[in-house]
Amino acid sequence: MRIGLVGLGKMGFNMRERLRRAGHEVVGYDRNPRASDVASLADMVAELTGPRVVWLMVPAGEPTKQAVAELAELLSAGDLIIEGGNSRYTDDREHASTLAEHGIDYLDCGVSGGVWGLEVGYGLMVGGDAAVVERVMPIFDALRPEGPREEGFAHAGGVGAGHYAKMVHNGIEYGLMQAYAEGFELLDAAPEVTDVPAVLKAWSRGTVVRSWLLDLLIKALESDPELDDLRGYVEDSGEGRWTVEEALNHAVPAPVISAALFARFASRQPDSPAMRAVAALRNQFGGHAVQNAGPTSGAGRVTDNA
Amino acid sequence: MRIGLVGLGKMGFNMRERLRRAGHEVVGYDRNPRASDVASLADMVAELTGPRVVWLMVPAGEPTKQAVAELAELLSAGDLIIEGGNSRYTDDREHASTLAEHGIDYLDCGVSGGVWGLEVGYGLMVGGDAAVVERVMPIFDALRPEGPREEGFAHAGGVGAGHYAKMVHNGIEYGLMQAYAEGFELLDAAPEVTDVPAVLKAWSRGTVVRSWLLDLLIKALESDPELDDLRGYVEDSGEGRWTVEEALNHAVPAPVISAALFARFASRQPDSPAMRAVAALRNQFGGHAVQNAGPTSGAGRVTDNA
Amino acid sequence: MRIGLVGLGKMGFNMRERLRRAGHEVVGYDRNPRASDVASLADMVAELTGPRVVWLMVPAGEPTKQAVAELAELLSAGDLIIEGGNSRYTDDREHASTLAEHGIDYLDCGVSGGVWGLEVGYGLMVGGDAAVVERVMPIFDALRPEGPREEGFAHAGGVGAGHYAKMVHNGIEYGLMQAYAEGFELLDAAPEVTDVPAVLKAWSRGTVVRSWLLDLLIKALESDPELDDLRGYVEDSGEGRWTVEEALNHAVPAPVISAALFARFASRQPDSPAMRAVAALRNQFGGHAVQNAGPTSGAGRVTDNA
Amino acid sequence: MRIGLVGLGKMGFNMRERLRRAGHEVVGYDRNPRASDVASLADMVAELTGPRVVWLMVPAGEPTKQAVAELAELLSAGDLIIEGGNSRYTDDREHASTLAEHGIDYLDCGVSGGVWGLEVGYGLMVGGDAAVVERVMPIFDALRPEGPREEGFAHAGGVGAGHYAKMVHNGIEYGLMQAYAEGFELLDAAPEVTDVPAVLKAWSRGTVVRSWLLDLLIKALESDPELDDLRGYVEDSGEGRWTVEEALNHAVPAPVISAALFARFASRQPDSPAMRAVAALRNQFGGHAVQNAGPTSGAGRVTDNA
Repeated sequence: MRIGLVGLGKMGFNMRERLRRAGHEVVGYDRNPRASDVASLADMVAELTGPRVVWLMVPAGEPTKQAVAELAELLSAGDLIIEGGNSRYTDDREHASTLAEHGIDYLDCGVSGGVWGLEVGYGLMVGGDAAVVERVMPIFDALRPEGPREEGFAHAGGVGAGHYAKMVHNGIEYGLMQAYAEGFELLDAAPEVTDVPAVLKAWSRGTVVRSWLLDLLIKALESDPELDDLRGYVEDSGEGRWTVEEALNHAVPAPVISAALFARFASRQPDSPAMRAVAALRNQFGGHAVQNAGPTSGAGRVTDNA
Repeated sequence: MRIGLVGLGKMGFNMRERLRRAGHEVVGYDRNPRASDVASLADMVAELTGPRVVWLMVPAGEPTKQAVAELAELLSAGDLIIEGGNSRYTDDREHASTLAEHGIDYLDCGVSGGVWGLEVGYGLMVGGDAAVVERVMPIFDALRPEGPREEGFAHAGGVGAGHYAKMVHNGIEYGLMQAYAEGFELLDAAPEVTDVPAVLKAWSRGTVVRSWLLDLLIKALESDPELDDLRGYVEDSGEGRWTVEEALNHAVPAPVISAALFARFASRQPDSPAMRAVAALRNQFGGHAVQNAGPTSGAGRVTDNA
Repeated sequence: MRIGLVGLGKMGFNMRERLRRAGHEVVGYDRNPRASDVASLADMVAELTGPRVVWLMVPAGEPTKQAVAELAELLSAGDLIIEGGNSRYTDDREHASTLAEHGIDYLDCGVSGGVWGLEVGYGLMVGGDAAVVERVMPIFDALRPEGPREEGFAHAGGVGAGHYAKMVHNGIEYGLMQAYAEGFELLDAAPEVTDVPAVLKAWSRGTVVRSWLLDLLIKALESDPELDDLRGYVEDSGEGRWTVEEALNHAVPAPVISAALFARFASRQPDSPAMRAVAALRNQFGGHAVQNAGPTSGAGRVTDNA
Repeated sequence: MRIGLVGLGKMGFNMRERLRRAGHEVVGYDRNPRASDVASLADMVAELTGPRVVWLMVPAGEPTKQAVAELAELLSAGDLIIEGGNSRYTDDREHASTLAEHGIDYLDCGVSGGVWGLEVGYGLMVGGDAAVVERVMPIFDALRPEGPREEGFAHAGGVGAGHYAKMVHNGIEYGLMQAYAEGFELLDAAPEVTDVPAVLKAWSRGTVVRSWLLDLLIKALESDPELDDLRGYVEDSGEGRWTVEEALNHAVPAPVISAALFARFASRQPDSPAMRAVAALRNQFGGHAVQNAGPTSGAGRVTDNA
């Protein structure tokens, strides 16, 4: 098939390559002229023939909304936009609704796999109309990993379902990463275990905790056994927060996913206002204010009976 | 090699089989005569030749302590006990110390893999003296999965290190399971996603969350798509609790692992005393006592401004 | 002052009484004719003289929005609405904006105190323009507890700030309640402490944990020492969820407030889908499927080495 | 009564004063000669008459164990030791058992109140034999706050019960402090609320969250409205950890108390090893390694679809 691809960053760049290897014709557009195949969105659209298919791979939020708005003017009835970025599922509904006024179809597709997707393929979760999904199945088949289709692709439901599934995928991902991370820190802290990287590596096969994320952690430890080259400062993308918000909306307990998210928040605080408040309270009742005034301790140290 | 194996339950039974397939001679003893190769521990020891090797695979705590005590009397200086059960690492130190008085060597070995280990092999984490570990490497090589040794086997440190590593492994396992479980519940609750099993299955390849545990969840959903045949009642073995205790000992934050453990505790409570206390508090300040006495609400319902 | 009061439920009913005791004239309207002083909103407005002041005390969300919309038509420029219910702060902004088109002023006021407020007074947090706040200070002074004004009243900021403060107040409340509840459950579970209600009562004075909530818990235990008359089923109002959402918006770690909220969610689940998923996973790797086929355990019980 | 008091630190010093004000004769001993009334433990014992009563107020663990051991030699059958420090309840059992061999009675007494106890009185939770408790009730009555005895004193159960109750008291305290702290941080982060100290102060009366801890936080904010003079670094005493350990022992879910404890652990880490592990994982799958090699983003920024 012939397809337009908007956004040739880390993900889009590799996806263009994977699609081309599978024999598809990709007209890529990026604001960066060195990555782009064409000079403008309009040029990209001009190189496609109806019914056109355009895959969006730009950042969620404003950039995607803007791209949808521009394409709504450039495309024609019967054309199709596949939103492959990380849009919130509620945005998908707005996009679909806007485009429907122009007779343009819309699919949302959650894409997982990071930079490894070029070789391994991408896990895909799609939302939208079944007939439309069917129309572009060759594209999905090219992007997803080899093997049975259902092991790397799902039609999750109507518009928004693909990104909803991807959002939950990322929420789970936060929890998984934090679980390994806590285990790593504990192994690192315990004098009993003298070779932490070896232990993690030994979990690669046969164990209950084996996973791709574990493989990545093992890989990271190979070049940096104490992870000393890194700081414990971790960003979060919106999807972890949205997952917790959805849990709130549906009254679903999410202690692990939220704890993983909060750990990231805390990791970015040079000094925690909350913990300053706790310290202030301890000062107040512990009487540090009068510590100098009072005598030193009984049998050697101060008893702190608060 | 020739080895004694005490405990032929779910794990030991399969391990005997895997060892035999690899060409080792196993004399298995179990209290259940139908599973046992010999009539008694003493008979088992009698069928081994020095320096003897005995693998313990009985429940942690008293049963293991008792087996160690009995074997201390039956074995001779230069013999070796490998504790492959789920002993707490502090127990290992006591076992090793007791046996050292008899000149008997001791290794502790954390074993992961469940019933799948027979075919796939078991992940092994070993604690003890390096020379002793080397002596029984053929046994470890037979039990661990195919492939590079270091991907299914680690010498984690001195006595206790193997079970320490296994303990943390299980703590991580709790966190991983809970992360998937929360994601599953949210997908299940959200009307957006209409085919939850298909979404999970699509995560099998290419995605960041792919793992063996995910594969197992997909498998479970195949025969029971809503998991209706199960109750949300989950036991915990000791290792999750020990992991949190160790986190406390080392001042390691473990919000995810502890949250996963507490979710299991809560799952077993038909009615939570803590939540009764919260309900009691709401009654008190919300004035449910006077709810009947007061008029019904203003614009339709009662405002609860506590 | 003369004031209209819409909504005479548990809160509004008592507030009318407290205002009257302080010498204010209150024209109360409620859909329930037995509680209402007038037959309609319009009648209530007719009994006030400009610039009119109307206090809303109806449920948050639609009922409040509807009341604001109706009053926008009935009131005149220069009049004032005080929203004393539990509106989300974002709703306040919409209310204020709508009313501003009619020249009607708007304050939002978070009210805490429950049924005890009639006698003790209500804690008040107000958002809006300072001059407008000043205009109705006699009303706030009547409602707040005796003592220095600043110990029961705050002008928290612009429109929405009052409800924002009240929202956080309730989030904290969730955390406090859960902390006491966990402690209660642990005392109840421990054989060491033989008189739990006596211990809680002994915390009434002198201790660090003394509080009004503790007093309420002690009171509840007086009539029901094991809280057996209650079920551990706890609703949540929107404000706990909003607090966590705001924490997400501002990247503020909120592990305690969210844990308290999730405990409420879980308390309402007869059976947890997440824990069914965990149970399913345990079944899968623990090989319960083959449990019957295998022999019984070695030294007595089955070793579960997953 | 006449009583010996060992340990004249922040707590013991004030308790001696409070006891004396109530008319009791206190012979205080402290290693610091400036605070001490006598030159040695032996001298202190010599100034008491049988049956002697000695109150211990030295740090938990070794110092207390050592004091108990020394007093076991100095005291006689029929004498009594009251352990008023923060001993773990399991230590109490050992102390009682050791002393019983000498015919010496033992009570454990959890003491709460900090430096405020001198004026306000101390909350007391006592474990041990009822007849022994009765014998020294005048001491307890002098130390506890004015008012009904049961509002500041409880006989919680047998030996250890007093410290068990105090332990849980402190666990709850951690949860309460963290709840306020999270609320404070959120108010501080939100632009809506422009006067955070005023809001907290307005919670002093009438609200659901009013408490002594809140009063202390208000007090702290008076001199330091942003808590800028403090660092968000918070120690924990043993009792929070013991509370969580007991929760583990009794399978009591303790998400709030443990979250509060873990927040303290995290507050003390200049850099979190766990978060370094999470960062390492993000690097691995996000392909930061190839970030420089790849082109810059599509519609402006990079899409991160992991």
